Amino acid sequence: MNVLIVYAHPEPQSLNGALKDFAVQRLQAAGHQVQVSDLYAMQWKAPLDARDTLDPQPPARFNASCASRHALEHGLQTPDIVAEQDKLRWADALLLQFPLWWFSMPAILKGWVERVYAYGFAYGVGEHSDRHWGDRYGEGMMAGKRAMLVVTTGGWEPHYSARGINGPINDLLFPIQHGVLHYPGFDVLPPYVAYRTDRADEARFVQIRDALGQRLDALFTTPPIAFRKQNGGDYVIPALTLHDGIAPGQTGFAAHVSTAATD
Amino acid sequence: MNVLIVYAHPEPQSLNGALKDFAVQRLQAAGHQVQVSDLYAMQWKAPLDARDTLDPQPPARFNASCASRHALEHGLQTPDIVAEQDKLRWADALLLQFPLWWFSMPAILKGWVERVYAYGFAYGVGEHSDRHWGDRYGEGMMAGKRAMLVVTTGGWEPHYSARGINGPINDLLFPIQHGVLHYPGFDVLPPYVAYRTDRADEARFVQIRDALGQRLDALFTTPPIAFRKQNGGDYVIPALTLHDGIAPGQTGFAAHVSTAATD
Repeated sequence: MNVLIVYAHPEPQSLNGALKDFAVQRLQAAGHQVQVSDLYAMQWKAPLDARDTLDPQPPARFNASCASRHALEHGLQTPDIVAEQDKLRWADALLLQFPLWWFSMPAILKGWVERVYAYGFAYGVGEHSDRHWGDRYGEGMMAGKRAMLVVTTGGWEPHYSARGINGPINDLLFPIQHGVLHYPGFDVLPPYVAYRTDRADEARFVQIRDALGQRLDALFTTPPIAFRKQNGGDYVIPALTLHDGIAPGQTGFAAHVSTAATD
Repeated sequence: MNVLIVYAHPEPQSLNGALKDFAVQRLQAAGHQVQVSDLYAMQWKAPLDARDTLDPQPPARFNASCASRHALEHGLQTPDIVAEQDKLRWADALLLQFPLWWFSMPAILKGWVERVYAYGFAYGVGEHSDRHWGDRYGEGMMAGKRAMLVVTTGGWEPHYSARGINGPINDLLFPIQHGVLHYPGFDVLPPYVAYRTDRADEARFVQIRDALGQRLDALFTTPPIAFRKQNGGDYVIPALTLHDGIAPGQTGFAAHVSTAATD
């Protein structure tokens, strides 16, 4: 299978760098094809702006969605964006690997999402009717592909537990796992998270590395998180609120994960 | 009072641009001093990396925390970072204004946080003991200052409601309001959110603008969100989990907001 690793860490000789190199080797040894987008090494342009469209006659006012749609439809996207979109089309699985900085992905990776996720590619896809509100949240260009986050934190695991001060890790990652990955159609696997990596000695590194190896071995067999499909009948359209009978009384991120086989 | 607006939108002639200009005027008319960091206009460098330290002898391996601490302590920070830190010291209130892109802040603003929030400035501050785990989550350099998010979304308000498919807006903003603002000590006001702004006509714009005006008029009187203080007795140290008697049985982001005057 084809695996794309989008990797965001500024130092090759870091724990993240070692884990990235390990992942490439482990996946290749299992017979997979691997491509890496090493965003820092590529000097990836982070901010989304008017320069992302190679338009000989740019409009007076820049609108991100309109510009993105226009560029995609008319072959006016910059080559760096086109290359990443081609990698996504090629991939059967996507890994986003990054250190958790200020409870989210590094800016350079956020900028990859913003620029590569063009209108008509990752959003603004599909028809809108009273039964179908675009191909999104379980449908879309990435349907049939898998995705997994590989995340390191400086903070301790209990700080990210159900009652930990940082907030539960699954809730912190929801805007990425649900909003960035499930949205264009990826099947999202439970994340691989290594905690307190600033203090990792060699023994701890081996533990972290081997646990990642097991997750990579199961990349194409691990059951994905059961995020609900937007157009599958669970949501009122166009309000996109859960029907009263679905997860009755429940609010928040967890309500968007199906808990029963029959749910 | 002194108000710093950190603003992240690529188009001056946008709804966001108009709201920013309006905010400056409204605040100045009320007698406040206002500075604006217009990140796109400033061509703010988004990615945090080794170039953020003006070190004549950079270490062989870049470590973000160590480099940041070293640069701050030895006057080796780049001028753009120093200037923003000075603005934060000067400010009595901080507004972060941005369009919600992929359920978080734009990359350029995330990069402002990552680079300006140096070790020893916004984190890594204060002593660690069995009763006090650093000056953070309610203590720190920004204690006594106020902060508020000013956010626009393309999506509809019900999509961001308690049972809406995107997740509740307060949960989506928790990593920013709690993790980026409460963390270094800001008192965080409820956010100002304008929904479905892509389709705003003149009448809707006036509505959005005037509602923002009322929030700005109350910037120094609105009660902040009652995020719990880390070192105030609600958390077990160093696990930083809520004590059993605090919000008993409750999990997730909401547990970190005090609900009772006596809580």
